[in-house]
Amino acid sequence: MAFQFPQKVLFKHCDPAGIVFYPRYFEMLNDCVEAFFDEVLEMPFETLHATGGVPTAEIATRFHRPSRHGDQLLITLAVTRVGRSSASLSFVAKAGEETRLTAQSTLVLVTADGRSRPWPDATRQKLLDREEARSHET
Amino acid sequence: MAFQFPQKVLFKHCDPAGIVFYPRYFEMLNDCVEAFFDEVLEMPFETLHATGGVPTAEIATRFHRPSRHGDQLLITLAVTRVGRSSASLSFVAKAGEETRLTAQSTLVLVTADGRSRPWPDATRQKLLDREEARSHET
Amino acid sequence: MAFQFPQKVLFKHCDPAGIVFYPRYFEMLNDCVEAFFDEVLEMPFETLHATGGVPTAEIATRFHRPSRHGDQLLITLAVTRVGRSSASLSFVAKAGEETRLTAQSTLVLVTADGRSRPWPDATRQKLLDREEARSHET
Amino acid sequence: MAFQFPQKVLFKHCDPAGIVFYPRYFEMLNDCVEAFFDEVLEMPFETLHATGGVPTAEIATRFHRPSRHGDQLLITLAVTRVGRSSASLSFVAKAGEETRLTAQSTLVLVTADGRSRPWPDATRQKLLDREEARSHET
Repeated sequence: MAFQFPQKVLFKHCDPAGIVFYPRYFEMLNDCVEAFFDEVLEMPFETLHATGGVPTAEIATRFHRPSRHGDQLLITLAVTRVGRSSASLSFVAKAGEETRLTAQSTLVLVTADGRSRPWPDATRQKLLDREEARSHET
Repeated sequence: MAFQFPQKVLFKHCDPAGIVFYPRYFEMLNDCVEAFFDEVLEMPFETLHATGGVPTAEIATRFHRPSRHGDQLLITLAVTRVGRSSASLSFVAKAGEETRLTAQSTLVLVTADGRSRPWPDATRQKLLDREEARSHET
Repeated sequence: MAFQFPQKVLFKHCDPAGIVFYPRYFEMLNDCVEAFFDEVLEMPFETLHATGGVPTAEIATRFHRPSRHGDQLLITLAVTRVGRSSASLSFVAKAGEETRLTAQSTLVLVTADGRSRPWPDATRQKLLDREEARSHET
Repeated sequence: MAFQFPQKVLFKHCDPAGIVFYPRYFEMLNDCVEAFFDEVLEMPFETLHATGGVPTAEIATRFHRPSRHGDQLLITLAVTRVGRSSASLSFVAKAGEETRLTAQSTLVLVTADGRSRPWPDATRQKLLDREEARSHET
């Protein structure tokens, strides 16, 4: 039930050492969250951003092993906590069996003027379903 | 004695909500570290990367308040721990008195093939001087 | 026979005006060229860059209409000229029937130390096949 | 009288070949234009974008020689034509005496809904002064 997002390591992601420049990983994670909101929550960013957004409040990331140009990464996103207007997510990026990156983030649903607002009921239920599914998997 | 790095929020940093897109903050932090290695440690990245690098092993970041296009940020970098081949850094980015971002990272000095190697003595001493200075400030 | 590369306009591509920030289009075009080298020329960038590269020597771009977050772009790449060690490409990016961007570029195959080198015969033939196909289409 | 913008080549600009990844040059050019609007035209982007913008309509770029990490670039911007609501600019980026990049662009002043609007008189005069100065220099 975890959401999976494939991402090949492209030329643009890599630095002079031939490995992913770490700020580019955050673009990948953001793309993954954008796809999750679109495909799972049915709350596409392009619609959501007409009336607000979901800024990231915090993110802690560990880069276990470097990723190289051409590597096929698979990013797995799980919902770990659902708050009134926030959600905590965890990410694991692997190349084959090797873990490259793990991260935990919290994002907050806000209005256009930046104040937090509660998840719509349907969205909240979808988030809770994902969280629930996750606890059963563990 | 903390290292300070001014950074105006530019058009390229901002998203459709008119605030800094969070992966861009990591480009700013990387620029700050690159300037610190150049100006304080006298170990410029362009020289260092001929024989290795200083990949970030982990970074935890909290985005306290959004930053807007045109904001004048001041990023303060402090050395919080010096290991044999690693160093821990802390960052605070402020606009005036308002804290926008805080982060703690650990980076590791590596050879060209990615194995950790000890800090050269002179570099280690410079890092320790910074760490020492910081403890006295606190 | 033209190579087609779909690209949704994502949050990361857009600026405070809600439209694609033009430097991000060049990342899209580079991704398109990287996919063309991989899928059509069977010369993946991750292999190619072990021994050289294909730097862009020039590119002229016209932005006909702005693209917005969520737009589904289709980028079409055509080979317009094949030189000894260079190739000229043309790009059209459309959203539905509307042209958003057109570009013409020239890239050059180089060795690791940056000197031009001739296309391998098999690659050259694949480029010529594409160029030929294009003239018949027109 | 030409506007000059220094830009060191940083780690983030460079690709696995150790040279500037060409889409990053367009971020540099955009930063240069943003500084020109702020410092010369006294029309800072952060103010301008409240009511519209200056999207780039076209840009033609030639990459004469690669730039490497650590190179000190100097970007020179000149005004080559002033239209009712548009302006054409030329750019030269050099490292010392060596030309790395030349570009010509046209940008257009637009309202928030994307329609072109005439330059304010004071801005137009500043643009014309720059264009005039340039013809005398040549």
